[in-house]
Amino acid sequence: MKIALAQQNYHIGNFEYNRNKIIEGILWAKQKGADLVVFPELCICGYPPRDFLEFNDFINSCCSSIDEIKQFADTIGVIIGAPSRNKQKEGKELFNAAYLLYDKEIKAEIHKTLLPNYDIFDENRYFEPANEWNVISFKGKKLAITICEDIWNMGDNPLYRITPMEKLMLQQPDVMINVSASPFNVGQHIVRNSIVKAHTVKYKIPMLYCNAVGAQTEIIFDGGSLVYDGNGNKVFEMKYFEEDYQLFDISQFSKPETTTINSDTTYFYSTKEIAIKGNRLDYLTNEKNILEIRKALVLGIRDYFSKMKFSTALLGASGGIDSAVTQVLAAEALGKENVSAILMPSEFSTNHSVADATQLSINLECRHEIISITNIFDAILKELKPIFKDLPFDVTEENAQARIRGTILMAMANKFGSILLNTSNKSELATGYGTLYGDMAGGISVLGDLYKTQIYALAKLINSEKEIIPHSIITKAPSAELRHNQKDSDSLPEYSILDTILYEYIELRKSPNEIIAQGFENKLVSKILNLVNHNEYKRNQFCPILRVSNKSFGTGRRIPIVGKYLM
Amino acid sequence: MKIALAQQNYHIGNFEYNRNKIIEGILWAKQKGADLVVFPELCICGYPPRDFLEFNDFINSCCSSIDEIKQFADTIGVIIGAPSRNKQKEGKELFNAAYLLYDKEIKAEIHKTLLPNYDIFDENRYFEPANEWNVISFKGKKLAITICEDIWNMGDNPLYRITPMEKLMLQQPDVMINVSASPFNVGQHIVRNSIVKAHTVKYKIPMLYCNAVGAQTEIIFDGGSLVYDGNGNKVFEMKYFEEDYQLFDISQFSKPETTTINSDTTYFYSTKEIAIKGNRLDYLTNEKNILEIRKALVLGIRDYFSKMKFSTALLGASGGIDSAVTQVLAAEALGKENVSAILMPSEFSTNHSVADATQLSINLECRHEIISITNIFDAILKELKPIFKDLPFDVTEENAQARIRGTILMAMANKFGSILLNTSNKSELATGYGTLYGDMAGGISVLGDLYKTQIYALAKLINSEKEIIPHSIITKAPSAELRHNQKDSDSLPEYSILDTILYEYIELRKSPNEIIAQGFENKLVSKILNLVNHNEYKRNQFCPILRVSNKSFGTGRRIPIVGKYLM
Repeated sequence: MKIALAQQNYHIGNFEYNRNKIIEGILWAKQKGADLVVFPELCICGYPPRDFLEFNDFINSCCSSIDEIKQFADTIGVIIGAPSRNKQKEGKELFNAAYLLYDKEIKAEIHKTLLPNYDIFDENRYFEPANEWNVISFKGKKLAITICEDIWNMGDNPLYRITPMEKLMLQQPDVMINVSASPFNVGQHIVRNSIVKAHTVKYKIPMLYCNAVGAQTEIIFDGGSLVYDGNGNKVFEMKYFEEDYQLFDISQFSKPETTTINSDTTYFYSTKEIAIKGNRLDYLTNEKNILEIRKALVLGIRDYFSKMKFSTALLGASGGIDSAVTQVLAAEALGKENVSAILMPSEFSTNHSVADATQLSINLECRHEIISITNIFDAILKELKPIFKDLPFDVTEENAQARIRGTILMAMANKFGSILLNTSNKSELATGYGTLYGDMAGGISVLGDLYKTQIYALAKLINSEKEIIPHSIITKAPSAELRHNQKDSDSLPEYSILDTILYEYIELRKSPNEIIAQGFENKLVSKILNLVNHNEYKRNQFCPILRVSNKSFGTGRRIPIVGKYLM
Repeated sequence: MKIALAQQNYHIGNFEYNRNKIIEGILWAKQKGADLVVFPELCICGYPPRDFLEFNDFINSCCSSIDEIKQFADTIGVIIGAPSRNKQKEGKELFNAAYLLYDKEIKAEIHKTLLPNYDIFDENRYFEPANEWNVISFKGKKLAITICEDIWNMGDNPLYRITPMEKLMLQQPDVMINVSASPFNVGQHIVRNSIVKAHTVKYKIPMLYCNAVGAQTEIIFDGGSLVYDGNGNKVFEMKYFEEDYQLFDISQFSKPETTTINSDTTYFYSTKEIAIKGNRLDYLTNEKNILEIRKALVLGIRDYFSKMKFSTALLGASGGIDSAVTQVLAAEALGKENVSAILMPSEFSTNHSVADATQLSINLECRHEIISITNIFDAILKELKPIFKDLPFDVTEENAQARIRGTILMAMANKFGSILLNTSNKSELATGYGTLYGDMAGGISVLGDLYKTQIYALAKLINSEKEIIPHSIITKAPSAELRHNQKDSDSLPEYSILDTILYEYIELRKSPNEIIAQGFENKLVSKILNLVNHNEYKRNQFCPILRVSNKSFGTGRRIPIVGKYLM
């Protein structure tokens, strides 16, 4: 049997676009002589559709799309993902389903059993879990079809009480097929490989795993669909961060050997565990990981703009490393001609900041504009003088400068129909070292899931062949330049220390005592964790962050704003 | 048996505060001669604790609190709510539990079965559902203890497959006790009454229902704890929007009659269904409902400030109805001396705007300041002139004015340690008729869950005894005053029409065709729904909104930003 995998990039709620893409995939597979073509989870509407699923009309549109697509499933079988209505009175109104289309009909419907509801996932919000499990007979083969999370219930401490594959194995399937929408985070492809491998070693039949690709706002799907034979050997790994179509003849796969399980079939439940095994900061800044992150961010930017129907970006270029790296990635994603850098010096800006930011735009061949904020800042201070009187310069005036810049950037974005790229990093978002409506403004955050230490590693990677980012941007001490001689290190510890503490707390959920036990000062740890929790109100108003870790700020991390924990 | 209910206001994550409050409640109940005192769901840590539950240290703190509290549960039984660790290998790591403390020990532990995961609720994210059900024997009585949602699985189309009370009834309990954290929305107390009543009619034993009170960021718990006898008669309804302590002797309750079920025991699963039964806008602006909303909002403001440890508020006073109503509620919640109104006229402001806003502050005896934005706006235009050249005045310049105001308000808030109150309403948040980082700025949104039509009704209520809000603020045509002679009605239909369409779409999830079928123009409906979906990116960066409806923007409504539905 010849099975094709179509690893495609969908657009949530854009039924016409998704339908045309799926039909294109079917026609390709037919032309290649496939018996069956497999598409990713919820490909009909795009993943995650979130509360659109609560609209009956949205579900009707899904059904109409299936009706149109099934006309193309004549002599070829087609497996697609879509929500399906629960016909029983009890339980939630929908299932997360996979359909087998053939002979221009729906031949079978499979429901997802394990509904992820952690981090960015909310599937229990919408879906009722499957309560029966059947293999599907198709052209003489028995297919064990599962949906994404259904194959992730592994390890000594499983998250769910049911393991769907165990149920399906009772019916002696010939092949496992998994339709997924499994998002990227660093190292996730290793976990995926080990899970698919573990299944084929354990059950002695091949698995074809079809993932989605492309970014949906903050969530980046990385593709990398997998095929393993029934012997634990990798047959093929499809492209990462790109669409890809491949055909596999499963009759050509090597037959299962009767040897015992391979010793390297250990798997990891999550990248959290992988990270724990390594030295933390080393893991974060490992060159291979940084390379993956770069590809993910470029895809994230590109898809955000194309799905929002925008083509041009602008950003505030401070002469610092965050805006420099953001600009490089934006130019890579959108084309240099579509990225404008706005330099907004004040009386506190150093000359080298303007020079460095200008040089970067010259190197990248991006348009850049210089707009001074000095007169505007003076105008604001003048109006506030009768009220502020002789109160000393403090964070108020620092924030006001950042907000003037936010206002200018948004005016440029409004006038020229661009999206403002945010340049904040994870270290400053964590500690609240940023100004709401100021440098925290923007439509999408490019680097908000990268600690400062990772941004240095990314800058190094960018410059590895040729100096694109001026050297002095990388070497100078980080500064917000909102008062004379300000340095980040006036308020925060060195980034190598800060980032380690943040990683322990945010990614690993360690307690203050556990972090202190690693050799950090009690007072410093308290101060940092207090800052993280105190600044939830700021992050709550922040734009979506391209997610590259397994614990990004945003929808995957939900903290009560009035909460008083560790404060 | 004498059972006390302690309806208290907790602070999420503030273990010391919550513990002291619970101990205070125990001491009160002992002094009154109670055999048992009941506290609300998750009272140990406050509800909803959200991702704090993922921190092992947070769970340890919950356990320590229970240890301290149980010392006070000597001759009196104490039922408290707290997370509890799942000792089995399989499944999620926690249960949402209720503990019976007595003799200074944990005597029993009950797990919640039905985990709400819709709207603002995410309980499946953290908790494993109960898989056994036992009544608890205490001082000769058998208690059927359930937790909040456990009693809500009613109606012809139940959300869950299990009904915990059916399981518990097999063991012949004497009394039902429910510990809840059930949030306010309009009409919710009617639903609660009908559900508790339906249980006592059906099962012929009394029910004591203990709810939390107080706001946790956007979620407002309204109290109103209930006691019904085993005959479907209401024994007592505790205070709304206030803490309350009451003692009940269940041996004094009337004995169940053997008649058939009362005909008025129909219940409603949700206020959505109640609303559908009435005329929509009438229901929204019904005076009784508006009165409830007013109390909820005052509590919401007060608790947000006290839990964030702030005492003073400021707001931008435009002379319009939204800022006027916000100011009145803030003065009611925080005291007139703690609320400052900032008037920021521009060249487009009408004289009556400044006069009206000033008059309101005089009426309320609030401090007010006038800060003109004209010179600042000119300074910005001057800096942008070399880039904008002769491009016409458009939304860019309108937004820039709003953002200058945002910058001034935040400067005032920063300098004087106040929180900026946001004054946006639900109609404009829905349609995107507001400026991000401008009038959309603020720490908490007071009116963001009220349609404009409801704000008029609230203004009318406020003025019912005496004219607090100047009459002309209520009668003049709404305007953003960002260009000459601007009116809201230039861009939007009349609010009575707009709000009805919005309500049908947002609250009732109706399709365009269903809304058009009610007599609205096809083109208008398309335009409005397109605006709602298009502006998700703005609402995504909005502050928390005090929630008074059953579908507020914010955590209870999750829409993909790049989603293209109905656009």
